[in-house]
Amino acid sequence: MAKKFALIVAGGSGNRMNSSVSKQFLEIEGKPVLMYTFEAFARYDSEIEFVLVLPEDQAGFWEALCEKHHFTYKYKLAFGGKNRFQSVQNGLNLMDEEGIVFIHDGVRPLVSMQTIQNCYDTTIMQGNALPVVPPSESIRYSFGNENKAVDRARFFLVQTPQTFKLNEIKAAYQSAPHQNFTDDASVLEYSGQNIHLVEGNRENIKITWPQDLIVAQAFLFPQ
Amino acid sequence: MAKKFALIVAGGSGNRMNSSVSKQFLEIEGKPVLMYTFEAFARYDSEIEFVLVLPEDQAGFWEALCEKHHFTYKYKLAFGGKNRFQSVQNGLNLMDEEGIVFIHDGVRPLVSMQTIQNCYDTTIMQGNALPVVPPSESIRYSFGNENKAVDRARFFLVQTPQTFKLNEIKAAYQSAPHQNFTDDASVLEYSGQNIHLVEGNRENIKITWPQDLIVAQAFLFPQ
Repeated sequence: MAKKFALIVAGGSGNRMNSSVSKQFLEIEGKPVLMYTFEAFARYDSEIEFVLVLPEDQAGFWEALCEKHHFTYKYKLAFGGKNRFQSVQNGLNLMDEEGIVFIHDGVRPLVSMQTIQNCYDTTIMQGNALPVVPPSESIRYSFGNENKAVDRARFFLVQTPQTFKLNEIKAAYQSAPHQNFTDDASVLEYSGQNIHLVEGNRENIKITWPQDLIVAQAFLFPQ
Repeated sequence: MAKKFALIVAGGSGNRMNSSVSKQFLEIEGKPVLMYTFEAFARYDSEIEFVLVLPEDQAGFWEALCEKHHFTYKYKLAFGGKNRFQSVQNGLNLMDEEGIVFIHDGVRPLVSMQTIQNCYDTTIMQGNALPVVPPSESIRYSFGNENKAVDRARFFLVQTPQTFKLNEIKAAYQSAPHQNFTDDASVLEYSGQNIHLVEGNRENIKITWPQDLIVAQAFLFPQ
């Protein structure tokens, strides 16, 4: 069994939520989203090592929340950079052993144990794993003032945890020529490796819009 | 004001839902999804004329549901064909006046009045309208055994009601060279017209997977 790390990236602001509170701190049934995310990984493996990336100016607020909620998970804290690339890199720099790293959005509290297991298994076998789901909707591609239908069977919606061998993703981040990557898989891909898609779970939404908080609540607390 | 028609297409089976009941008949708080969909359009315009497309072998079941739920909306009933193309065409054939037609999935009960209004306004001004939302997720394109990241800012998830001038969409259906179109906009597009994208609403999900029923319930009945 390889050593496992969960790198929880929580750098977001509240802009799209019409909220002054950052998305990761919004509460569902009185508890911040970010705490549910920790719990999802701890359920999968109680020995997993956490690294949390937060904007430096939110660390105090988070620590006060932890005290209020008697949140006792152990984790190392890294500060966010000026973009997601730097934030992830700051987190990776706190991991100095070999192992498997799950890089996960702090605002995805609904990742299932099966999704995490799929990512782990495929990373062990093939070197990396990216959980995806097929879209329920048709997809249009827009260019200039026009747009056209595309074959949706060829497109997948990307979730996290994006999962890697720690030494490989670290090396890919160190050799990357710029910081404008959409996600971690794209960084590794740039270094020349193929990315392996695995099945995610539909509940594993990224809390981005106000509606998403209602959805997450419904999944976390089914009526 | 142009005359308005709502063509509600409800041809689906229950396959993806792990259910023997077709998706459109699944109940939320004791009422079939399809009835919420009618209500969404009736709220927008109480004078709108409905045409419902159902598989012929579900008509009796639906009528029994209507009686049970005291469902009194007036509508014309068309029977589904062997594919979506034929189903829509059967519905269009029941509309013999000029006007604007909203072609809508029966399993999208959460379309907002604003989305319908956006579709109407743009159809009046520009000839057609397709409601879309930007994806929250990164998107991957798969080809053969490989896959690659694409620029998600150029991709949109397509909702309904896809909205048209009745004579134009009828003509497009009649002149279409085959029946393998993903959606109605693609049929019109094939006839040479540009498709106009308008803003949809994120709640307007297509009930496709078991999880979607939980989401729809949460949006219809916020806690």
